[in-house]
Amino acid sequence: MAIYTHQSLYEFAKSVFIKMGCSDADALTASDTLLSADLRGVDSHGVARLSGYVRLWEKGRINTSPNIRIVHESPSTAVVDGDAGLGLVVAPFAMQVAIDKANQAGTGWVAVKNSNHYGIAGYHAMKALAHDMIGISMTNASPLVAPTFSKERLLGTNPIAVAIPANEEPPYVGDFASTTAANGKLEILQRKGEEAPEGWIQDAEGNVTTNAYGVKEGGALRPLGGDRSNGSHKGYILGSMVDIFSAVLSGANYGPWAPPFVSFMDPVSDPVGDGLGHFFGAMRVDAFRPADEFKGHMDKWIRRFRNSEPVNIEQPVLIPGDPERAMEKERTTNGIPLLDAVENDLLSLAKRFDVTLKK
Amino acid sequence: MAIYTHQSLYEFAKSVFIKMGCSDADALTASDTLLSADLRGVDSHGVARLSGYVRLWEKGRINTSPNIRIVHESPSTAVVDGDAGLGLVVAPFAMQVAIDKANQAGTGWVAVKNSNHYGIAGYHAMKALAHDMIGISMTNASPLVAPTFSKERLLGTNPIAVAIPANEEPPYVGDFASTTAANGKLEILQRKGEEAPEGWIQDAEGNVTTNAYGVKEGGALRPLGGDRSNGSHKGYILGSMVDIFSAVLSGANYGPWAPPFVSFMDPVSDPVGDGLGHFFGAMRVDAFRPADEFKGHMDKWIRRFRNSEPVNIEQPVLIPGDPERAMEKERTTNGIPLLDAVENDLLSLAKRFDVTLKK
Repeated sequence: MAIYTHQSLYEFAKSVFIKMGCSDADALTASDTLLSADLRGVDSHGVARLSGYVRLWEKGRINTSPNIRIVHESPSTAVVDGDAGLGLVVAPFAMQVAIDKANQAGTGWVAVKNSNHYGIAGYHAMKALAHDMIGISMTNASPLVAPTFSKERLLGTNPIAVAIPANEEPPYVGDFASTTAANGKLEILQRKGEEAPEGWIQDAEGNVTTNAYGVKEGGALRPLGGDRSNGSHKGYILGSMVDIFSAVLSGANYGPWAPPFVSFMDPVSDPVGDGLGHFFGAMRVDAFRPADEFKGHMDKWIRRFRNSEPVNIEQPVLIPGDPERAMEKERTTNGIPLLDAVENDLLSLAKRFDVTLKK
Repeated sequence: MAIYTHQSLYEFAKSVFIKMGCSDADALTASDTLLSADLRGVDSHGVARLSGYVRLWEKGRINTSPNIRIVHESPSTAVVDGDAGLGLVVAPFAMQVAIDKANQAGTGWVAVKNSNHYGIAGYHAMKALAHDMIGISMTNASPLVAPTFSKERLLGTNPIAVAIPANEEPPYVGDFASTTAANGKLEILQRKGEEAPEGWIQDAEGNVTTNAYGVKEGGALRPLGGDRSNGSHKGYILGSMVDIFSAVLSGANYGPWAPPFVSFMDPVSDPVGDGLGHFFGAMRVDAFRPADEFKGHMDKWIRRFRNSEPVNIEQPVLIPGDPERAMEKERTTNGIPLLDAVENDLLSLAKRFDVTLKK
């Protein structure tokens, strides 16, 4: 396990994106989006994915000089065509459109088509906070999840993020996959040689399994809830709602047609739309009540929940966003640890693109 | 178990609401909202609750001649003050404001304060469908749910509903509590003398219990997911997001301050806002892409999911809204069965208000 500073990984990612043909501005945006995952402790979505983006670009599935543009709009909505650009660049463009719409109309809602993997959902939602807006972000993703009662993988882990500003307290930032557990958690279990809890995975026959390789062996992740008696139909509603908002509203590929992130799997031959889809929202708080009033009550809300009586005195009740913020503070100060496999991956990229990876 | 026609229960509820002092128009709206729960099979939210509304009215907590009005607005948003009216009347007013805003601005988003229990979430979301809009509905509720790691009941079962129009297929209607199981399911277990599955309930110490009376004995419902390893922090995010959108945005009572539905519990003595809160959204489909195009793809989405390979050949994969629509068809034709306790409750109301309950 080696430790790198945020700055060095950021500079490295930027150099790689520039070598891929991104403009300086796009390389900066993409690196900032990507590194926010490493800072916040979502290691599966940070520099560990950089080589994945490179491979998609090599396959011609990522356009590094895209013409990202609004193709349909109303006072409070827009559809953005990402022109097969990096999701890391398309998504910040679209979130800015949502914010601009909210400035004019009170709220802004932007569906995106023809994009790629956009990093962590929370990063985009949090862009709204500085404007005293509530931010919302969701995306569809490669099909790995079986709806309740289904054997087939028809949905992605389809995350939802909501960022809500407070005044003296740090903001509320919820960011979660609509499955019981995200794929990254399976990789951790696989490395440790451990079993998965019941409710995370089903095998190729659709039966619940604790085999951490169950998805790789033809099974599927299960929607949040795990099984019918524990509410998996609710996780299925969440995941499918994200799919429809992100991809049916925008004109992207939905459900099992969503393009795979891994370059060794080809997109389907019968697409129902363009690329991957996202959905963003921005709601100006003062379109509902004065911002100071709202943020004062958010402080009160946060304090009441944070100070509620815990089941175990050693594990206080958390506010959504607390763990990630603590991690960001720690890693900004002490650096970002990389697994050997990830470091080697970056060193290969350094060689491939003739750029330097500094510690 | 007695069977009543929809029409007879509807007329009965309308008569009771009129006797409570509602205008004819409000009594009609309230009855339609209430009965939609019985028709769709959500028995806990239909006429079984009528006497509960009456008791709240007797306590002076429901105003049957409210001045429901917009108190704040922007092109795509509004805050509605329900003036302590029946949620069954306030919510349809607010949903109509959302639809009107969407007609002008592409989308409409309405937060409501000073309301009461609004029936089933799905009913309000479905109002958008006839306008080729996506409808969204959520509400906060009496605190019965403990956030992950907490002993205390700080959230309601806070439901979310999303209704999405299709073309030839019936619409997609997701409607779910943000807990593993809703309170109504516990009542069913109690009547049958059965235990609850693990993950539904915690006892007064915060430990998981299968005691179906656990909530009544000082425990709490658990957020969707059940425990941390199965993603209960995600259910907690959902429930708290609903609470904040419904009550902090609007100026209603949030979290543990939310007023109890049961009349024998008084509202808190230190309110942080007015009454209960709701949140509604309406998104014009053609603010994103031509409506026919969208609805055609929804047909394709629905067919692909419905026809996916099931785990068990006898249990096909469902589309959100399928079970409720089947129930509505069945009960429209064959009538609505009432438990003896519910029938007796209605007969008491009939006597109390000198109105007739016909079969």
